[in-house]
Order: sequence, then structure tokens, then C-alpha cells
Amino acid sequence: MDAAKTFALGVDIGGTKVAAGLVDAEGTILFQVRVAMPAHGSAAEGFGAVQSAIEAVFAARPEARERLTGIGICAPGPLDHVTGVILNPPNVPCWRNFPLAAEVHRVFGLPPCVDNDGNAAALAEAIWGTGVGYRNVFYVTLGTGIGTGIVFDREIYHGRTGSAAEGGHVTIDYRGPKCGCGKRGCIEALCSGPAIARRARERLAELHHGGTHQLESPHVKSKMLALAGDDIDDLNAEIVAEAFRQGDALATEVLRETADLLAIWAGNVIDLLEPDVFIFGGGLAQLMSAFFGRIREQLQLWCVNKRFAEMPMVLAKYGADSGIAGAAALCRDEMTGK
Amino acid sequence: MDAAKTFALGVDIGGTKVAAGLVDAEGTILFQVRVAMPAHGSAAEGFGAVQSAIEAVFAARPEARERLTGIGICAPGPLDHVTGVILNPPNVPCWRNFPLAAEVHRVFGLPPCVDNDGNAAALAEAIWGTGVGYRNVFYVTLGTGIGTGIVFDREIYHGRTGSAAEGGHVTIDYRGPKCGCGKRGCIEALCSGPAIARRARERLAELHHGGTHQLESPHVKSKMLALAGDDIDDLNAEIVAEAFRQGDALATEVLRETADLLAIWAGNVIDLLEPDVFIFGGGLAQLMSAFFGRIREQLQLWCVNKRFAEMPMVLAKYGADSGIAGAAALCRDEMTGK
Repeated sequence: MDAAKTFALGVDIGGTKVAAGLVDAEGTILFQVRVAMPAHGSAAEGFGAVQSAIEAVFAARPEARERLTGIGICAPGPLDHVTGVILNPPNVPCWRNFPLAAEVHRVFGLPPCVDNDGNAAALAEAIWGTGVGYRNVFYVTLGTGIGTGIVFDREIYHGRTGSAAEGGHVTIDYRGPKCGCGKRGCIEALCSGPAIARRARERLAELHHGGTHQLESPHVKSKMLALAGDDIDDLNAEIVAEAFRQGDALATEVLRETADLLAIWAGNVIDLLEPDVFIFGGGLAQLMSAFFGRIREQLQLWCVNKRFAEMPMVLAKYGADSGIAGAAALCRDEMTGK
Repeated sequence: MDAAKTFALGVDIGGTKVAAGLVDAEGTILFQVRVAMPAHGSAAEGFGAVQSAIEAVFAARPEARERLTGIGICAPGPLDHVTGVILNPPNVPCWRNFPLAAEVHRVFGLPPCVDNDGNAAALAEAIWGTGVGYRNVFYVTLGTGIGTGIVFDREIYHGRTGSAAEGGHVTIDYRGPKCGCGKRGCIEALCSGPAIARRARERLAELHHGGTHQLESPHVKSKMLALAGDDIDDLNAEIVAEAFRQGDALATEVLRETADLLAIWAGNVIDLLEPDVFIFGGGLAQLMSAFFGRIREQLQLWCVNKRFAEMPMVLAKYGADSGIAGAAALCRDEMTGK
């Protein structure tokens, strides 16, 4: 290791795992570990996983410990980013009002920075990723859920109580499908992985129960059903993606509709915030990037101002590592001495 | 006039009038004039109205001219707030790429600040109105259209090309009624004055063409039709408001639905931005303030995070004068010597 270098430790806590990594001041992840997260255990067991992940990094790279500028942690919300208390995340039931920052401080002697994963990932993209050079960065992660983060001038925008940038729950269809959050027609309820799969299943079911004239449709031969082992209930977003890659017409239609819905939603974001760049991350971003042209075309219909046309729409730099990079980014002020 | 005082000249340009006023550093409008705006005339005629409004203020208050810190102008968008060029506002057809700021500078020797009305009104509320003391201010004007403005830390948020904060065109129903902007289901297409009137007309028409069982409904006796001179085409938002004040059940229902739709829309804004305060201005704000309780109740269903509950929801300070105050606010940095 370069003797002059400093490092941040980024810790990414999820419902099933804790990942921890060493990140340098340029945003390069040098080393990382993953341990299982006993999210349904006791609060102490949950914290034990965090502690062991951090200790594993120090054990493997002892020389980094002295040159550590900070510990950043991203965790599922809701949480209080000011106090570092984890409130009541649905997928980490072991923690209820758990003082995560205080515990990490007590054990490791450093007060960590804590924020939720969407915000942290947005920050990593803004300072080290594809958002570099843009003032107002809007980040969206497309996956099992849809999360967003807003970064203005290299600072996370938190809103009044810290719960801003819940863009996945912006509704475009208030009479539409119910979302897990209780609202209807949120973009998460329409375009997350499970929502894409649901729409694909609905389309297949329609065809199979449709009139005989439908039998001539090429869609009846959709590869999706075979890929799901002929069990429609097993059809998931990965299968839609695979069928699309194999040229399946119905899968393509389902994803084109996904693009159209994302454009309507992005139009709302742009009409309100007009960011300088729109960054797509998460497990489904690569897939949906095949439809960026379509999204841009539809945005012409769904933005009140047509000057967005040159707005860059890009893929995130960090894929599965967005949590570690994001967590490390939370303490970049310490890293750069700001 | 207090010899130590300085003043800003605020000019509010609309589709039918130009208002100009002297505003002190506390946001008090001391004097104002109004002249007709020949919006369908030539570009020079349009500018002539602006010039004569400004000159009328100077003629009436010559002593103010020496102590003038700046000229602020708010005009219908789209416009370029950096260069002060008016692009192509639908309701001011006399100006197409008109260099308004340069013309004012040439004639009056001062480079004016120019912005659109929603942004300017939001700023006036943030620095002088009911937004004082709040960091992140979201302003909405309810009237013939629905406009919004976002102010962070006493600065207008403009977005990449200056066209941010078009909150009136955030859709909550992408298959809903067509909006003037081309999108569908924008809150402007659902809750502006004309949209409220349209929904009232639809409800009345349904009742009158409904089955006989409807004849027993109290709604058939709605006062709205009589107030419209028995001509349903003459029913407008003012009539809905008047019928509501007279206790009319159907008018109340139409306005309650308006509140519910506004809550769904405000939920989107809050989920994305979580402002510190939500300020309602415009001709219909007073009327809708009777439904603030209802909006708050519905927000419980339409915000992903329930901590918004204490978010203040207030009426704007400036009513019909929001344009003059807003325009003056644009040059408050000059006023306060910042």
C-alpha cells in the first residue's frame, strides 16, 4: 500500500448479508469481505455480524487501520442519519431503534457516518462514479425494490426529517396496483423486479385464457413459460430478461412497457427537479439500459419542458458494490480533509 | 420615506396586465400601479407596457429612484432566468426570444433579475412570507393553472436548464385527463380552477342523466346549476366555491375530491423532497384551506413515511401581490448588500 494513502471503511448492511470493504480516496474498493446477517435474530446478533465484518477487514489488512479516516455504514431505512439510530427497517427486524452508530463508536473508537443505501449509492456515483462533473445528481436503483437518492453539489439531500428521496414511491397511477408501502401505483409497484414479473404473468395468463383468435399470436409461443419450467408462478424478472435476450416478443413487450412507465415516472422527477444527470443502478439497470432510447423517446411526451432532451442518462459505475462504495463515500469529507 | 431605507422595484408581467410596485427590505409593498398588457400586440408594444408601468412608479415616487437597489421582474415561462430572455410563453405571444432584461437595462440603466412567477412567489414567501424560518420551502399556487416553486436555503432551485419546479405537471394518473402541456393526469389537469369546474359539471351531468333512483339524492338539488344561471357550461370554480360556502353537498364533495387528489400529489412531492413547509398561494388557496385537515388525513395514506405528520401546511402571505413581492425578492441580495 502507498504510504501516503488513506482509506475509508465502508459497511453495507442488508437483510441477508453484511459486506465491508476498504475504499481509497479515489473510490476504488481494495478489499472486501461478506458475512451473513442474522436479521431475524437478536439485536446483539445482528450487531455481531457487523462487528465481525469490520474485524475481518482489519485482520486481513492491519496496516489500513492506522490510516483509516472513517467508517461509513449504509443500512436499510428508515433510519436517523443524524444520530445513526436504525428505526424499524422491515427487512432487518432484529433492530428496533437500535443505536448502530453509538455501538460502532463504542467498539471501534470511531464515530461512523450512517445513511440509507439509496442515498449512499447516489453519493458514491456523484463523487466517484458516473455522476462526476454534475451538480444535481438523481440516482435510481432498479431491483427487487426501487430506491432513489438525490445529491446536490456533492451533498446528499435529506429533507426535513431525513426521509426525502423516496422516489420509488412516487405514484403515477393512484388507482393502480397496491404497493408494499400502502400507496397505489408507485413506480416500485409497477417496475421493480417482482412487478415486472407480475405484469409478464398477467400477459401470459391473458393470452392463455383469451379467445381462439389469440392462438395465432406469436406471443402464445413466448419462451417465458418454458424458461419458468412451465409453472407460471415461477416466472420472475430474471426469466423475463433471459427471454428478452433470446428475442422473445412478449418479454420484449413487457420490458418496453416497463420503459414507458419509467419514462412517465422520470418525467415527474424531471418536471420537479430537472437534475443534471439521471443514473440507473441496481440489478435491473443493465437490462433496462437496452431501452434507454425508448425511455428518452417517451420522455418527450412526459416532460413539460422539452429541453431535458440532452440530459445524460447513464448506468451507475458501482454495481453490486454500490453499498460499500456508498458507505465509504459518507465519510469522504474526513478522507479529503474537508 | 425613511431616508435610510432602500427599495426594490418589482414588476409582475401577466397575460393581461403589468403590475409594478416599490417593495422595502422587509417585503412591504409601499406603492403599486397596474397597466394593461397588450400580449397579442407587437414585441415593442408589450415592452412599452412594462416601460410605462415602471415609469409610473418613478413618476409617483421620484425620491425612490435614487434609493433603488434593483429591478426584479417575474414573467410567464418559459424564460431563461440567467440571460433574462423570454422564450415562448403561451399567454404572452408578443414575445418570442425577447431579450427583456437587456431592454430594461438599456432603458433604465439597471440590469434586472428575471424569473418565472412560481419561482419568484416561492422566494418572496421564503424570505418575507409564511416560509420564514424554514430551510426547504415548497410553494404551490392554485388557480387557473397550478404552479410551484422550490426554495432551498433562501435560493430558488432552478435545475439544469432553469425549468425545474414544474410541479403542476407531476402526473398522478397517467391514463387520466389530458393536460394543456400534453401529458395526462397532471395535477393541473385535475385540480386547477377549470379542472374543478369540469369535475363539477361531470358530476352534475351524471346525476341528471342517471337512473331515477338518483332523483332522491340531495345532489340533484345542487345549488351549482342555479348559480350558473341553469347553464351547465357557465359553471366555473367560483361557482363551486360559492355553492360550497352555501353548504351545497355536491360542491363540497367536488372540493373534498380536489383535496384528496392534492394529497396524492403532495405525497409525491413529499416522498421525493420532504420540504420543511408546504405553502399554498393563488386564487383558490383560501378556499382549499378549508380542506387542509382532509389533505393532512389523506397524506397519511399517500406518504411512504409517516413522519411528515407535523409538516406545516400554511397559506401564503402574499395573495394577488405575490408577483410584485416575488419580483422584488429576486433582487433582495442587492437590497441587503449580500
